Amino acid sequence: MEIKVLKNVLDRNNNIAEKNRELLRIKNTVMINMMSSPGAGKTTILEKTIPLLKEKYSVGVIEGDAYTSKDALRLKKFNIPVVQINTEGACHLDSNSIYEACKELDLEKLDIIFVENVGNLICPAAFDLGENIRVAVLSTTEGEDKPSKYPMVLRDSKVVILNKTDLLPHLVFNKKEFINDILAVNPHINLFEMAANLDSGISEWVDWLMQWRLRVGDR
Amino acid sequence: MEIKVLKNVLDRNNNIAEKNRELLRIKNTVMINMMSSPGAGKTTILEKTIPLLKEKYSVGVIEGDAYTSKDALRLKKFNIPVVQINTEGACHLDSNSIYEACKELDLEKLDIIFVENVGNLICPAAFDLGENIRVAVLSTTEGEDKPSKYPMVLRDSKVVILNKTDLLPHLVFNKKEFINDILAVNPHINLFEMAANLDSGISEWVDWLMQWRLRVGDR
Repeated sequence: MEIKVLKNVLDRNNNIAEKNRELLRIKNTVMINMMSSPGAGKTTILEKTIPLLKEKYSVGVIEGDAYTSKDALRLKKFNIPVVQINTEGACHLDSNSIYEACKELDLEKLDIIFVENVGNLICPAAFDLGENIRVAVLSTTEGEDKPSKYPMVLRDSKVVILNKTDLLPHLVFNKKEFINDILAVNPHINLFEMAANLDSGISEWVDWLMQWRLRVGDR
Repeated sequence: MEIKVLKNVLDRNNNIAEKNRELLRIKNTVMINMMSSPGAGKTTILEKTIPLLKEKYSVGVIEGDAYTSKDALRLKKFNIPVVQINTEGACHLDSNSIYEACKELDLEKLDIIFVENVGNLICPAAFDLGENIRVAVLSTTEGEDKPSKYPMVLRDSKVVILNKTDLLPHLVFNKKEFINDILAVNPHINLFEMAANLDSGISEWVDWLMQWRLRVGDR
């Protein structure tokens, strides 16, 4: 019975996600769904990415948080549209909250929308938002065992970022095991190593994003 | 409608949690529910805590993970009973899974059961397992903003552990803000600072645990 209820929730979510996807396609806006544990560095990566992207593209952000609008405030300084969704304790964003947030954005003028999902490696992966791609962020400090323990977030991601590589000298972290476990789940994923706080690895990731955005724009 | 379904789920969970609590009371076994983000250090803390506790108490562990039994394998070396619960993608433990796990343990012989919950700062807090106390583990690397963004996990916790203090020299971390935000949510919480990998802060925490266990045993 409980499984049936969950299936209905997911079916409804998928229907609205398709609506979002079609809307974004018509407006030629792409949506990137960023997922990670709490504190893996999603907001810092966006703080470093947005100024570079802004040279060529107009960018907006939808911020998902259980409570507070702290992350949205950190991104407001770039003079870009930022919409905050507070889930009030729910552990993931869903397509309906994205549908509502999109109403607050002028999609006609936006090339790229980043969605910063709620900090959680599990449930966000089950909820299609209508995004074009998913990006999983893992932090070196979480340990090399996370890809095997939380494969869901990697399965449908186009990119995985290993963040906080500046802390590697102070950690026990088996990078070979980490990469092998990622590739076992998703052999076609693009891996970027990054220390976003120090700008390390940002340009490679932004180059990739720009090239990907060009390809998508061609269609 | 969806809210009603969730309320039913929580009501059912609370009923079984009460059953667990009564069973544990009769057996004079205490249960400690450990909650954190992925990779904050719950298993490492248990690896350092169990050998010290074992000198006076018999200890068992219930391991919750979405997938794999990696953490359970890390604890098997202490020759203690360890029961693995794989939630198969669910983001939290519930009281029924604990009820089933308890059947695999000889409660008569156990003084303390640690429950290592699924790595997630949100949903585990909503599900009473029948535990005596909750312990929240936060890591310095997650940033000082987590208590205000994820207050749920702190609200009913008896203890909060700030782990990975050995990395503080390499991080930007406002400890004053961190502590103020914790106390704003839960003024009576006990805070322990720890670098579990280096054994720093372990003895203070174990001393507290032993004294708390004594007090509970008196009742």
